[in-house]
Amino acid sequence: MPEKIIINDVGPRDGLQNQAVILEPQQRLALINALIDAGVKHIEVGSFVSPVAVPAMRGTAELVAALPKGDYHFSALIPNLKGYELAKAAGIDTANIVIAASNTMNEQNIRMNNAQVLSFAKDVLGRGQADHLTTLACIATAWECPFEGLVPEKTVIDLCGQLFAAGAPEVVLADTIGAASPGQVKSLMTKLVKEFGAQRLSCHFHDTRAMGVANVFAAVECGIRKFDSSIGGLGGCPFAPGASGNVATEDVVLMLNQMGFDTGIDLGKLVLAADLVGEQTGANATANSARWIKRQLEKGLL
Amino acid sequence: MPEKIIINDVGPRDGLQNQAVILEPQQRLALINALIDAGVKHIEVGSFVSPVAVPAMRGTAELVAALPKGDYHFSALIPNLKGYELAKAAGIDTANIVIAASNTMNEQNIRMNNAQVLSFAKDVLGRGQADHLTTLACIATAWECPFEGLVPEKTVIDLCGQLFAAGAPEVVLADTIGAASPGQVKSLMTKLVKEFGAQRLSCHFHDTRAMGVANVFAAVECGIRKFDSSIGGLGGCPFAPGASGNVATEDVVLMLNQMGFDTGIDLGKLVLAADLVGEQTGANATANSARWIKRQLEKGLL
Repeated sequence: MPEKIIINDVGPRDGLQNQAVILEPQQRLALINALIDAGVKHIEVGSFVSPVAVPAMRGTAELVAALPKGDYHFSALIPNLKGYELAKAAGIDTANIVIAASNTMNEQNIRMNNAQVLSFAKDVLGRGQADHLTTLACIATAWECPFEGLVPEKTVIDLCGQLFAAGAPEVVLADTIGAASPGQVKSLMTKLVKEFGAQRLSCHFHDTRAMGVANVFAAVECGIRKFDSSIGGLGGCPFAPGASGNVATEDVVLMLNQMGFDTGIDLGKLVLAADLVGEQTGANATANSARWIKRQLEKGLL
Repeated sequence: MPEKIIINDVGPRDGLQNQAVILEPQQRLALINALIDAGVKHIEVGSFVSPVAVPAMRGTAELVAALPKGDYHFSALIPNLKGYELAKAAGIDTANIVIAASNTMNEQNIRMNNAQVLSFAKDVLGRGQADHLTTLACIATAWECPFEGLVPEKTVIDLCGQLFAAGAPEVVLADTIGAASPGQVKSLMTKLVKEFGAQRLSCHFHDTRAMGVANVFAAVECGIRKFDSSIGGLGGCPFAPGASGNVATEDVVLMLNQMGFDTGIDLGKLVLAADLVGEQTGANATANSARWIKRQLEKGLL
């Protein structure tokens, strides 16, 4: 039996929140359904943020209400307690909180300092346990911060330990600005896996410096079996200067499928989802791998 | 002291031979000089092939005569004995012969079957030793052949052994069509390094399936310290259907420099060379990393 790797597509959130074109909830639902058609079962569908701060995410409650029922794992990002309450009311499967490893990033991203955000995280993780709402924690700028530079590994390891201690069932390590090299990924993930086990850890990479796929490979080598990626390679963080697209789901799935892992995802249908988001947003959503996949489809080889 | 990794830029050969626009020898020289300005010391400057078969490589002898003198390692590809004699007469430092690991690729690429091409290789490697002309051997389609599919590892290991036995000082393993995953690279290179040592081996990757940078990382992990890459990610093989660009030199150098290796290459000057080849050919020579590098330059951070 091939080993499974979970792909969590964050395109409907991390991808769409940073596009010039703002999609209506039903367009976002069409994209989510295209991902589901391709076999993607874990999807970050939106965020419960202020529609003034991030207009692209407005109507997420309406979107959640319209999601298909089935063996899917839908999540939404929440920046604060209000977001948590909205997420709970909307009936989302999983709420994601984001805590940067660097103080300036926390202040820029969610207007809290490190101490405040850790207190918030502990509060929300406790509420999640009481409410039976799965709440995951994502450590942003886990390798490098756009304001403070390189983040010490010890800072990330300590923060990760505090999040697990506060009840997080899983911690996502995010290279928010796409700054890490595979050498740095291997170094940090080796230590985290040793300390906490690979089963509770996940990784989130951007392709800013063209190392996104290499970073996924480095993390796979460390035993990580769950990854965030974004259909079409769209993405970025509006509050992190210099961040560019997430690593493309089609690039990651092509590599993992070819390496013999079971992602459950059909590449031919996945490029249809990439085409759709490209049409919806007008963004260039054509990864190298998508061109190759399409040539294979034309030749009847896939 | 940081460990050195050698970058051999094959853009002036592998990059230019596959463009719609054909450059004059003096334009190719300008590109080579831009690479030298950036600190690239190993460059495949052209090939001694029929100007009818590959018009983009015409005038390579004229180009070689005009190359700057200094601590540089210039090489040229030779497809046959005539090419060897032309290369020798031109006074190039190093001649590169290419032998595919698969029979159909040899027949399509240089119109010889496996036995004929091995006999040719042994002949040329012997002549090179007698003439004191360094002659390297490149194994094309070392992972997958566009005609025959996956190539057995044993075939490549055996061929590599025969080439070393025939006097090749170095063997380059080429993923000619960009088909290998980092898992496959790690598997084959681990075996080759164990058998022959990392010092005599080099790798050549294409980015067809978006795994080029990950493949370089996988090979670095196996101990490989010399890589072919192409400025601007241009490249391909006119006789290998489906091949697309070589892994971009700027992507590879950014990763290796960031991982603490000494490539001797200045990223800021390297993107000038990528800009130049983009202007010369009209091709899209802007890798993700080049965009990032330029933003850093604008901010005075590089």
